[in-house]
Amino acid sequence: MERKRIAIVGVGLIGGSLAIQLHEKKISSRLIGVESNTDHAQKALELELVDEMMSLDNAIKNADVIILAIPVDKMVSLLPEILNKIDQQIVIDLGSTKEQLIQSVKDHPKRGRFVALHPMWGTEYSGPQAAVKGAFENKAIILCNATESDKDAVEWTKKVFQKIGMRILEMDAAAHDLHAAYVSHISHITSFALANTVLEKEKEDQAIFELASAGFESTVRLAKSNPAMWAPIFMQNRENVLDVLNEHISQLKKFKACLEKENEEYLLELMQGANKIKRIIK
Amino acid sequence: MERKRIAIVGVGLIGGSLAIQLHEKKISSRLIGVESNTDHAQKALELELVDEMMSLDNAIKNADVIILAIPVDKMVSLLPEILNKIDQQIVIDLGSTKEQLIQSVKDHPKRGRFVALHPMWGTEYSGPQAAVKGAFENKAIILCNATESDKDAVEWTKKVFQKIGMRILEMDAAAHDLHAAYVSHISHITSFALANTVLEKEKEDQAIFELASAGFESTVRLAKSNPAMWAPIFMQNRENVLDVLNEHISQLKKFKACLEKENEEYLLELMQGANKIKRIIK
Repeated sequence: MERKRIAIVGVGLIGGSLAIQLHEKKISSRLIGVESNTDHAQKALELELVDEMMSLDNAIKNADVIILAIPVDKMVSLLPEILNKIDQQIVIDLGSTKEQLIQSVKDHPKRGRFVALHPMWGTEYSGPQAAVKGAFENKAIILCNATESDKDAVEWTKKVFQKIGMRILEMDAAAHDLHAAYVSHISHITSFALANTVLEKEKEDQAIFELASAGFESTVRLAKSNPAMWAPIFMQNRENVLDVLNEHISQLKKFKACLEKENEEYLLELMQGANKIKRIIK
Repeated sequence: MERKRIAIVGVGLIGGSLAIQLHEKKISSRLIGVESNTDHAQKALELELVDEMMSLDNAIKNADVIILAIPVDKMVSLLPEILNKIDQQIVIDLGSTKEQLIQSVKDHPKRGRFVALHPMWGTEYSGPQAAVKGAFENKAIILCNATESDKDAVEWTKKVFQKIGMRILEMDAAAHDLHAAYVSHISHITSFALANTVLEKEKEDQAIFELASAGFESTVRLAKSNPAMWAPIFMQNRENVLDVLNEHISQLKKFKACLEKENEEYLLELMQGANKIKRIIK
């Protein structure tokens, strides 16, 4: 496939990791970074994640494709502005929520140039130094409301992410946001809340540090995630997240009731039910 | 150090993993397994985790050291019986709760031969096939109420687990159970409850399977743990677990209130608080 000039807006964990892939898979002829955080901009250049940094306006002029990897609240304000300024460039977003964003450009005359994506990959770290080689490979990527995008834009986008090694799944924005609440957003809420629980209850840092096993680290690691990235995700997907959070609290209350009533039989039943996750997560 | 004949009662995840280490580190001259589950007994022999299987009574007669790696409810009923039958053998337990067990043999004439340990290692898998080479290395192990054990028994035990590569921490049983609730037991409860939440809300297994990212897997993996092992742990440590579970539910309710009231400022504050876990878990 013909290489393109690609601008990445937000060269952090996601944008930086994608930049590595776009270069390695020979998809980009030139990688332009747009980054409002000057420390991140400098670091991204040092790490050679992108070839050069530009202002957003210059990047739009000099790129064939503009990829947005910024917090989802900034995405909603920036995407319509970018669509106002483009000619025939393809604009792609990689955000974790989709309904509000797609709604924000629904009637835009350039709507067709925009392709909405959500790669199911991330880590609890952030910034360009968190970018990972080989990220996204063998992971799923969700393409939302593809029929609202121009055919050429969708075709190019699919080819690119297939070349990177991702499985493309198509669904509408509402279904995406619902599933994302279940399989990603709630995990982050529980992890943040667990960290606060332990920090509140366990006053001896040294004890946590010395005793924490892999199990604890595994359930709490997402609590290290970037609040500036996650708060807007939770707010944009608040109805779905609230729905699953309410269910989660009521599930925890079942465990609580078992312990209060010393009902070991029901406790075993709850845990055997939870074991069914094995049929999905090996 | 002189090699000893060691009996392992319960050759599953923990007992099997320890058996591998006892052999590799040249601590055992002979490894005797005691296993009530006949499938596990056969599998443990096939995997050569132990040299032979014996009844508990024969194992007690033929071993210098008896190590218990069975569910904590079985531990409480079996330990006094074993102490009744031993001469000068050392008896070690590796259970995840300590107060009730230590209480159960407090006034036993052979109390001194018993050493109470809890290695801070495990996985969500169980049975002899789950035994892992190199487990325990560079992990912490808690030695409880060491002053109630005979000096020679404590000294031998410390040497063994140091040779295996573990950091030995000493504390009393009450402190152990409290810390264990914070840094291990609550992680299992939240993970079990999260699995039930997602299985309840997400009726499409295929969607979870296709979309689940590493973050979801990380927070939910402990839900695959063995209920027969974990229910007795939660029951024995129910007061501490209830205490931390109540705190966890109230932390989750803070997230819920933020979403309900669209209070992004407080949401950010909660997440920034949770980020402080970074100072402990790198």
